[in-house]
Amino acid sequence: MRTIDHANGVITMIDQTALPHEEVWLEIADVDGLVAAIRRLSVRGAPAIGVVGAYGVVIATRLHDPRSDQAAFESAVNDLRSARPTAVNLARAVDRVAAAARAGTDPPAAAEAEADRIRDEELAASVAMGELGADLVAELLGVRPVRVMTICNTGGLASLERGTALAVAHTLHDRGLLIEVLPLETRPLLQGARLTTWELQRISAPHRLVVDSAGPFLLARGAADLVLIGADRIAANGDTANKIGSFGLALAARHAGVPFVVVAPESTIDHDTPSGDEIEIEDRGPAEVVGFDGVQVAPHGTGALNPAFDVTPAELLTAIVTDARVIRVTEGEQP
Amino acid sequence: MRTIDHANGVITMIDQTALPHEEVWLEIADVDGLVAAIRRLSVRGAPAIGVVGAYGVVIATRLHDPRSDQAAFESAVNDLRSARPTAVNLARAVDRVAAAARAGTDPPAAAEAEADRIRDEELAASVAMGELGADLVAELLGVRPVRVMTICNTGGLASLERGTALAVAHTLHDRGLLIEVLPLETRPLLQGARLTTWELQRISAPHRLVVDSAGPFLLARGAADLVLIGADRIAANGDTANKIGSFGLALAARHAGVPFVVVAPESTIDHDTPSGDEIEIEDRGPAEVVGFDGVQVAPHGTGALNPAFDVTPAELLTAIVTDARVIRVTEGEQP
Repeated sequence: MRTIDHANGVITMIDQTALPHEEVWLEIADVDGLVAAIRRLSVRGAPAIGVVGAYGVVIATRLHDPRSDQAAFESAVNDLRSARPTAVNLARAVDRVAAAARAGTDPPAAAEAEADRIRDEELAASVAMGELGADLVAELLGVRPVRVMTICNTGGLASLERGTALAVAHTLHDRGLLIEVLPLETRPLLQGARLTTWELQRISAPHRLVVDSAGPFLLARGAADLVLIGADRIAANGDTANKIGSFGLALAARHAGVPFVVVAPESTIDHDTPSGDEIEIEDRGPAEVVGFDGVQVAPHGTGALNPAFDVTPAELLTAIVTDARVIRVTEGEQP
Repeated sequence: MRTIDHANGVITMIDQTALPHEEVWLEIADVDGLVAAIRRLSVRGAPAIGVVGAYGVVIATRLHDPRSDQAAFESAVNDLRSARPTAVNLARAVDRVAAAARAGTDPPAAAEAEADRIRDEELAASVAMGELGADLVAELLGVRPVRVMTICNTGGLASLERGTALAVAHTLHDRGLLIEVLPLETRPLLQGARLTTWELQRISAPHRLVVDSAGPFLLARGAADLVLIGADRIAANGDTANKIGSFGLALAARHAGVPFVVVAPESTIDHDTPSGDEIEIEDRGPAEVVGFDGVQVAPHGTGALNPAFDVTPAELLTAIVTDARVIRVTEGEQP
């Protein structure tokens, strides 16, 4: 399933905020509308945001010629670039397409060709991670049907078509080697309960949802054969920042003797950050924790600690699978 | 705060299902009404259920003389006894009060005296656990203000006035040695977010709520000095069954070098169960997991694995505090 597409200056994409109960497709043909959609999280996941940003520049190029209408074009590019300041893929993709548009003899055609290239690279990366990851699983566990535990949403919604960790489950499913996926619901924003279940349903992969706190015990009782997670950032020594809850799963996987594998594109590896100690942990404030979906759960005035992600030390990882290679952490390999 | 009281055949108790947003007090003067209140979880927590069951027999005795109206009396006792079949405290308390009523020359007075004794035993146990636990904390960490992480609701709502693990935090607070409590929200039923926060607010103990999956990482980053949990059942070797999520916290506490202490009355120790391997784990079905406080989150038809509690092996415990003693597990002591 292609959750983001483009034709003739119109981006068609699924509205992630309406999932899983409604499947709403947005058609966006102007830059302001796209910036607003990115800001309200209708599209989330760094690679997905990069691709819509790329097509956003295509739209900008069609509306404002980079040479005859330069000020309007550059302003639109700037707006797109800063729609989500922390997603490095967005700025990178926008810059690439804008540069192609400025340099091309036919700016709209040049922009579209570059945006298509970015999309194709993401699609190829996703397929490669799925294949490399599924091969690694066969190597670690033998060629046999397996049960996979995962957290957050790492499928096509976040990263185009197949995603990262979920791409591996998808490839295992294609090979007839997937018994079931146990997605953790992923509090506070419930990406596992809302999005991963929806994606698994779409590809008819068997799955049962679990609350985050049940993950460690289910691993101890042998309910899964391995854990697959994505990554927000991987430090030079392999320490991995990912959705809050990943670290506790890694401890439990080690305790249970179950492989714990990170799946993320090469671009996630940050060679300038020596270790996880240098990764700052964002606290997203109490609102997400004290309630959900407008329903207040805790007493009014309750405060909260809300770290959005955690850091799993490299020594708890079995391997890191990228779109280019497998880093065997247990054998001493580093990114 | 006394959340359950009795006078002249009327039980006054707080309705836990309305917390934390409304403080509704129920007045119950008939057995059927009490059985219904227990069944709909207006009162929960084994010791609390035991005490209301005891006063339920007082009501039954006032309405039906155990000798002249024996059939009606025994039928009422039976209904009370089986209102929550798994709570051993309920059957034990009902049996004690019924026996006193049958044997007494003034059955209502005899029943009330026995029910008051059960209540007083629970209150004393709660105070004792608080004192023994706070003394142990001072021994483990020195006499200094501390930060406590906990899970589920183990305060006065569950166990009369002070509770078990939360009784220790309460006593530390009384002694001026509590910096803050970090209660985990405790999916799927959110007892931490709904009830523990409410109890901590009542006693003006500083606290910040956290999602369950953040517990392990916050321990790794030094956000708490120790973990205090209650127990549903403690096996003869010290393996402890408690709310799902306890095991993952125990692994993280060990990794962080932070004490992990179980607080529970002697009656929780099950000498007939050799180890945690013999404790059956109840799966409560998907409904609690696929929704959140009544709001459906996952796609309709999503299945779930929903273990209600987990088992923490004794080797991950620092100590078990009961109302009678401290069992130093790290020093090889067993229940």
